[in-house]
Amino acid sequence: MRRVIRSGFRRHVRACRRAGATYKIGKEKVMIRAGIIGSTGYAGAELVRILLRHRDAEIVWYGSRSYVDETYGKVYRNFFELVDAKCLDDNIEALAGQADVIFTATPQGYLGGILNDELLQKTRFIDLSADYRIKDVATYEKWYGITHQSPRLIDQAVYGLCEINRGLVNEHTRLIANPGCYTTCSILTAYPLVKEGLIEPDTLIVDAKSGTSGAGRGAKLPNLFCEVNENMKAYGVATHRHTPEIEEQLGYAAGREVMINFTPHLVPMNRGILVTAYASLVKKVDGTLPGEAELRAAYEKYYADEYFVRVLPKGEFPETKWVENSNFVDINFVVDERTGRIVMLGALDNLVKGAAGQAVQNMNLMFGLDEKEGLALVPSFP
Amino acid sequence: MRRVIRSGFRRHVRACRRAGATYKIGKEKVMIRAGIIGSTGYAGAELVRILLRHRDAEIVWYGSRSYVDETYGKVYRNFFELVDAKCLDDNIEALAGQADVIFTATPQGYLGGILNDELLQKTRFIDLSADYRIKDVATYEKWYGITHQSPRLIDQAVYGLCEINRGLVNEHTRLIANPGCYTTCSILTAYPLVKEGLIEPDTLIVDAKSGTSGAGRGAKLPNLFCEVNENMKAYGVATHRHTPEIEEQLGYAAGREVMINFTPHLVPMNRGILVTAYASLVKKVDGTLPGEAELRAAYEKYYADEYFVRVLPKGEFPETKWVENSNFVDINFVVDERTGRIVMLGALDNLVKGAAGQAVQNMNLMFGLDEKEGLALVPSFP
Amino acid sequence: MRRVIRSGFRRHVRACRRAGATYKIGKEKVMIRAGIIGSTGYAGAELVRILLRHRDAEIVWYGSRSYVDETYGKVYRNFFELVDAKCLDDNIEALAGQADVIFTATPQGYLGGILNDELLQKTRFIDLSADYRIKDVATYEKWYGITHQSPRLIDQAVYGLCEINRGLVNEHTRLIANPGCYTTCSILTAYPLVKEGLIEPDTLIVDAKSGTSGAGRGAKLPNLFCEVNENMKAYGVATHRHTPEIEEQLGYAAGREVMINFTPHLVPMNRGILVTAYASLVKKVDGTLPGEAELRAAYEKYYADEYFVRVLPKGEFPETKWVENSNFVDINFVVDERTGRIVMLGALDNLVKGAAGQAVQNMNLMFGLDEKEGLALVPSFP
Amino acid sequence: MRRVIRSGFRRHVRACRRAGATYKIGKEKVMIRAGIIGSTGYAGAELVRILLRHRDAEIVWYGSRSYVDETYGKVYRNFFELVDAKCLDDNIEALAGQADVIFTATPQGYLGGILNDELLQKTRFIDLSADYRIKDVATYEKWYGITHQSPRLIDQAVYGLCEINRGLVNEHTRLIANPGCYTTCSILTAYPLVKEGLIEPDTLIVDAKSGTSGAGRGAKLPNLFCEVNENMKAYGVATHRHTPEIEEQLGYAAGREVMINFTPHLVPMNRGILVTAYASLVKKVDGTLPGEAELRAAYEKYYADEYFVRVLPKGEFPETKWVENSNFVDINFVVDERTGRIVMLGALDNLVKGAAGQAVQNMNLMFGLDEKEGLALVPSFP
Repeated sequence: MRRVIRSGFRRHVRACRRAGATYKIGKEKVMIRAGIIGSTGYAGAELVRILLRHRDAEIVWYGSRSYVDETYGKVYRNFFELVDAKCLDDNIEALAGQADVIFTATPQGYLGGILNDELLQKTRFIDLSADYRIKDVATYEKWYGITHQSPRLIDQAVYGLCEINRGLVNEHTRLIANPGCYTTCSILTAYPLVKEGLIEPDTLIVDAKSGTSGAGRGAKLPNLFCEVNENMKAYGVATHRHTPEIEEQLGYAAGREVMINFTPHLVPMNRGILVTAYASLVKKVDGTLPGEAELRAAYEKYYADEYFVRVLPKGEFPETKWVENSNFVDINFVVDERTGRIVMLGALDNLVKGAAGQAVQNMNLMFGLDEKEGLALVPSFP
Repeated sequence: MRRVIRSGFRRHVRACRRAGATYKIGKEKVMIRAGIIGSTGYAGAELVRILLRHRDAEIVWYGSRSYVDETYGKVYRNFFELVDAKCLDDNIEALAGQADVIFTATPQGYLGGILNDELLQKTRFIDLSADYRIKDVATYEKWYGITHQSPRLIDQAVYGLCEINRGLVNEHTRLIANPGCYTTCSILTAYPLVKEGLIEPDTLIVDAKSGTSGAGRGAKLPNLFCEVNENMKAYGVATHRHTPEIEEQLGYAAGREVMINFTPHLVPMNRGILVTAYASLVKKVDGTLPGEAELRAAYEKYYADEYFVRVLPKGEFPETKWVENSNFVDINFVVDERTGRIVMLGALDNLVKGAAGQAVQNMNLMFGLDEKEGLALVPSFP
Repeated sequence: MRRVIRSGFRRHVRACRRAGATYKIGKEKVMIRAGIIGSTGYAGAELVRILLRHRDAEIVWYGSRSYVDETYGKVYRNFFELVDAKCLDDNIEALAGQADVIFTATPQGYLGGILNDELLQKTRFIDLSADYRIKDVATYEKWYGITHQSPRLIDQAVYGLCEINRGLVNEHTRLIANPGCYTTCSILTAYPLVKEGLIEPDTLIVDAKSGTSGAGRGAKLPNLFCEVNENMKAYGVATHRHTPEIEEQLGYAAGREVMINFTPHLVPMNRGILVTAYASLVKKVDGTLPGEAELRAAYEKYYADEYFVRVLPKGEFPETKWVENSNFVDINFVVDERTGRIVMLGALDNLVKGAAGQAVQNMNLMFGLDEKEGLALVPSFP
Repeated sequence: MRRVIRSGFRRHVRACRRAGATYKIGKEKVMIRAGIIGSTGYAGAELVRILLRHRDAEIVWYGSRSYVDETYGKVYRNFFELVDAKCLDDNIEALAGQADVIFTATPQGYLGGILNDELLQKTRFIDLSADYRIKDVATYEKWYGITHQSPRLIDQAVYGLCEINRGLVNEHTRLIANPGCYTTCSILTAYPLVKEGLIEPDTLIVDAKSGTSGAGRGAKLPNLFCEVNENMKAYGVATHRHTPEIEEQLGYAAGREVMINFTPHLVPMNRGILVTAYASLVKKVDGTLPGEAELRAAYEKYYADEYFVRVLPKGEFPETKWVENSNFVDINFVVDERTGRIVMLGALDNLVKGAAGQAVQNMNLMFGLDEKEGLALVPSFP
C-alpha cells in the first residue's frame, strides 16, 4: 500500500524534472543513468541523497559489497520509502553496460585495480578515491603504499576540481579523479594567492580540522562516539595522504614544485572541514607587503563568478555550519602585518563539496548540464 | 560583482519554477508573495530556507524587530549571497497589502494582539505561535498566562495539522494555527489508536525529548553550549503549554475530554523531537488485547496514503537523525503484553514538520498547490 | 627517567593513605589488594580511576582478554605515566590467590560460568554483570537467553544497592551482585514511594535516557560517533534486561509482584542516566491524593541520611551534568493533580554510581571502611 | 536534616586533611583561608571544585557580583549540599582581612583597577585575569584597549607558569599573574625548543583549538548551544590577546624579541585546548637538521621531572580527552624532514591547568606545600 506513496515521490520529482535541460542523445532527451559502487559509505549515501533530487539523473545501481541483497532504504533509514532498491555486488562489467556514468566511492586501489580501456569505452567514471588524482605514479605509490595497477590510465583522468579545471571537464571526459575533501578546501583557500604569486608557496602551512564523517562508516574503536565526543586530536601528522595531492595542484598553480606542511585534526562534529592556512606574503619591489585590496582582488579574480565559492567580507570568518549540507566553500583571509604573513581560512561540507557534491558537479559538466543542477542547496542552520 | 552570482542563483531557481503548478489568480499564474514576521528566529530562518527552494512562492518581506535594517544574509551567514534583502520592522498594515500570505514566527500573544477582520480580508495568516491553536480561550489564558486580545477570531482559525485536518485547509482559509513541535509529534504518534478507540486516552503518558533549537535563539544562560552539552534534563514537568493543545486535539479524536501527562526534555543536539508515548490498550469483548496486526492496521488506515508519515516495519524504532532536515514523521509501536500497554514512538525535525515545514505544507494547501511542493526533502545523514 | 614521576604520584597518594582507616587483618593494617577482570571496558577503566585515588586499596591485577601484555596506560592514555602495569589474561585461579577482592566487569555469563565455592572461599567477588542480580533463575534465563551455570550460588549473592541493602553487606559477604546502571537510577528514584505504598506499583512506567558509554567500548556500527551524534532513539523497547531487575527489587519493596514498563533511550552524550518515572498515586481513605509534603517526607525518610542521594528542593529538576564524575544520585518529583499521577525524576553518572562507584561503595562496606572512601567526588561542571 | 550529610562531607574531607603537610604559622598548622572573587564563572567554579578537596585550604568567601546573596550550591547545582555558603559582593577591603590568599577570576581590568600596596601587605593575590601578565604596559594597553590603573605593581607580579618560573614563586610572593589557557599550552609546547635554540622563534605559528568553556558563562548569542554545536570557526585572527603574552614569555626563553602567528578556534566541546605549533628547525653547523633524539632530549631536559607535563612516546599524539579534568599537559612533536619544520602538539584542560589548577599549583608553591596537593587528579575518560 505504501508503494503508492513512494511512486508519488517519484512522480513529484519527475514533474520537476520535465523542466530540466535533460542530457541529449542525438535529439532525444533522456535521463542520465548513474551507478554507484560503494553506495553504503557516507559519501555514497550523500551521492544518493543528491541524485534523488537531481532532475536529469537517476540511480540504476546501488553497489555495496557489505550489504548485498539488503534494501538500501533499510541500510540507511533516512531513505525509508524513498529508495526500495536492493544493494548489488560490484559487478563492474555488468554495471558498465547499464550506466551512463559510474561513481566509485570505494577504498584506494579498487578502481585502479579493475579499470581498463574497454570499461572506459563503455561508460564514464567519476572516482571518489585517490587512484587517479596524482599524476606522478611514484608519489602515489609512496604515500599510499599501493602498487598502481593501471598507471597508464592516469593521464586520461581529469582532476575534477571544477573551479580550477572546469575547462578540462566536458562531454569527451571519460574519467574524473574527484578531489579529496581536505584537498578541495586547502587548494581553493590558497589557490588565487599562489597563482598570482602573492605568497611564498614553500612557507605554506595548512592546519585542517574535519568532522568525523570523513573517517568513514567502518566500525573502528577510534571512531566510537565516546572516543570522539568531547575530544580533539591531530592525526597523520606529516604523513597524511592528501599532502602530495595539495602539493601537486598548487605546484601547477605556482609553476614549480611546492612542499607544504599539512596537519589534519579530528573534531567532534559530523560534517565540515575548516582549513586555516598560513604563508609569508611576497614583498613587492618596493619592499612593502601586498595590501588587503590587492589580495582581495586576487580572490575576486578567480572566484567572483564562481557560484560555489563565497568570499566573505573583511572581518567575517568562515564557519563550517554556514556551509553544512551545501556545495559552498566559504573563504576569507587576514593579513598580519606584524609577521608579514597571511592567514587564509576556508570551510566546506566534506560530504558535499568535499565528495558527493563535487562529484555531481563534475557529472553535470561531463553531460553538458547546468553545473548547479541538483546542487543549488541552501545550507542548513542550526 | 558578486550580484551576478546571486542573480544566477535566482535564475536557476526560477528555471525550476517554470514547471510548477503556480498559483492562479484568474487565469494568470503568479508567484505567491510571502511575508515573514519573526524571520530571524530559528523557525523563521527555516521558513526562509524552505521558501527559497519553493517553485511557487517568493519572500517579499523579512520581518525582524531585533535586526531592523541589517542584511538578512548577514544575520544568518548560511544565506550569504543568497538573500541580500534587509530586515524590516513588523509593520503589519504595510505588509498585509504586499503579501498573499504572512507567516508569524513570533512570541505568544503577538498575532493575537494585532489581528483583526480587516487584516484577514487583506491577506492570509499562518501563525506559528500558539495564539489560535486552542479553541477554549480560558484554557489558553490559564496555561499561557496571557489575556487573549482577539478571542472571537479563534473560530476562524484552522488547526493546521494537515494529516488530520487537511479537509479544512483550502483556498477559503484565512488563518492557520500552525501546531507546536511537540504537539505535532505527540498527536500524530497516538492519533490512530485514540481515534479507533484502541487505547484508553486517560492513561496516555507522553515522554518527549527535544533538540535545543526548540528553545529558540534568545541569549539565555540555560541555552549556552556548556550548559546543554553533555547534559540532559526534564523541564516544565506537568506545566508545559503544549499539554492542553495535545489534549484538545486528541479529545476531538476520542470524542470526549482527555487528560494526559506530558514531560518535555532537553537533549544535547540541534534538531529533532522524539516522543515515547505509553497507554493501556482497550481490551476486546473477549477480554483479550488487540494484536499487532489490528494495531498496525489502524496506523495504516490513517497514514498509508500520507506522504509525510512513515510507519516503520515492526521492530524498527524511529531515530531523529533519520528525519533530520525533512518534513517526515517516523512512527512505530511495540505492544507489551505483560503490562497490557502499548509503547508508541514518533520522531520528527522540530524546525521542519514541527514548525516551518508544516507551515509551508499549510500554505500549499491554502493555495491549491501540491502539498509536497518545496517539501520533498530527503533527510540528511549523518 | 619518567618512572621517578610515576613513583612520585604513588608516594603522593600513599601519603594520603597513611591517614586512612585501612583494612585490618588481625591487628595489622594492610592495603586491600584488588583485581579487575575486564579492566579495559569503560566500567573497568572507571574502577581503575577511582581505585587509584582510594587510600585503602591498590590494584594488583589489570585483567583484559583483548589487550593481554599491553601496558594499561597505553590502552587508556589518560593513565599514561600513572599506570605502567601490563594487562593480564583472566586467569581466575591465579588471581583469586593474589587478591582480597575481584571485580568482574565482564559480559553476562562470564562469572556465572566459572564461579564456585572454592573461589568464593579464596577471595571476594563484586560482579558488575547481571549474573547474580536476579534471584529467580528462570527469569534470568528468559530475559538473558543464557543458561545459568551456577544457580545455587545466587542465594549467596547480595544485591549491592547500598542505600537499600546496606545491612546485608559486611565483612562476611563473599559475593556482591552490583546493580545495573538503569536499575540503580530507576529503583532509587521510585523506592520510597513504593515502599511506603504511596504509588500503585503496577502503574509504574520508567522512561530512561542514557549516555553512550553505557553501550560499552565494542567497535560496533551503531555506536560510531556519526550514528549517535545529533541523534536520539529508543531501543530494547519492552525487552530490555534491566526490566526484571527493577521489578524484582521494587517487588520486595512493595511486598508483592510488580510489573512495569521500562524504555531505555540512547542520548548523544558520554555519561549520565536520566530517569523519568510515572505512576498513579494511591488515594487516601478520604479519596484525596497524598500531598507534596507527605511525598517529600517519604523521600526524606529513606534518603535524608544518605550521603550519595540528594533530594532536590521543590521545582528543581535533576540534570545529568550535575552528578557527572560523582557517585551522587539527584532525585526529585512533581505531583500532577490533574491526572492523579506523580512524575519522579532521577539522575546519576552511569559509570560511577551506575557501575564502578557503586562497586567501590560495596567494597568499602565489605571491608568495614567508611562508605565514602574514594568516592567523595565533586561533580565536574561544565 | 540534610545538613548532617553536608557536615558529613566536611568531616570526611577533614579526616583526609589530617595527614596533610598543612601550612604553618609559627609552629601552628592552620588551614589556608582562600577567598574567590568571581567564583561563579566557569574558572571560579573549577577553583571551588579543586579547593573543596584540597587538604590544606578552605574557601572563606564566595565572591560574585551577579549572584549576591544566592546560595552558591544553587548557582551551580553540582555543589548542591556540598557548599551552602551564600555569594558575597566583592568587597575587597573586607575580604583582604579575612583571607590568606585571594583568587581573582575576574574580567580584565578589575584587579588592575583596585590593587594597591596596602592590599598586597594584607594578603596574597592570584590573578586569573591578564592584568599583571605582561610586563610591558604599552603592549598590555594596546592589545587590551585598557589603561592600566596600577602599572607600578606589575613588577611585583610573578608570571605563574610554574614549570618555568617555579623558582620565583615562594612564601614571599604576594602577587601571581596566573597565565592564560591558550598561553600555558602554547608556551609549554614550544618552550624547550625555543630555550635550546633548536627552532627559529620567528617562524613559530601556533594554531590553537579550544572547548567552549573558555568563552565564559556570559549569555551571548555566539555561545548558544545551537550556534557552537556541529560548528567550528577561527576567531580573533591576528588580534587575540594571548599573542603578546606568548611572545613575551618565549622572548625571555629565546633571549630576544619574538613575533608569532597565533590563531584560536572554537570547538564544539566543553573543555580542552589543543595546540598545533609549527616552526622551522635551526640547521646545525654541518647543515643537517637536529634529529628526533636531540629534540626529544630537549623536552626531557625540561620536563622529565615535571609531574604535570607528560611527553608522549614517539608517534602518539595528544588528545584533549586524555587530560580532561586533570592538571596534566600532554606534549609531543613530529619532525617533517621534507619541509625542515617541526610540528609540536600540546593538550590541556583549559579550566584546570589552563586556569584553576594552575592557580592552585601557584598557591601550593606560595605556601610551601607539595605542588601536587589537591591536583593529583586522574583524567576522566570517556
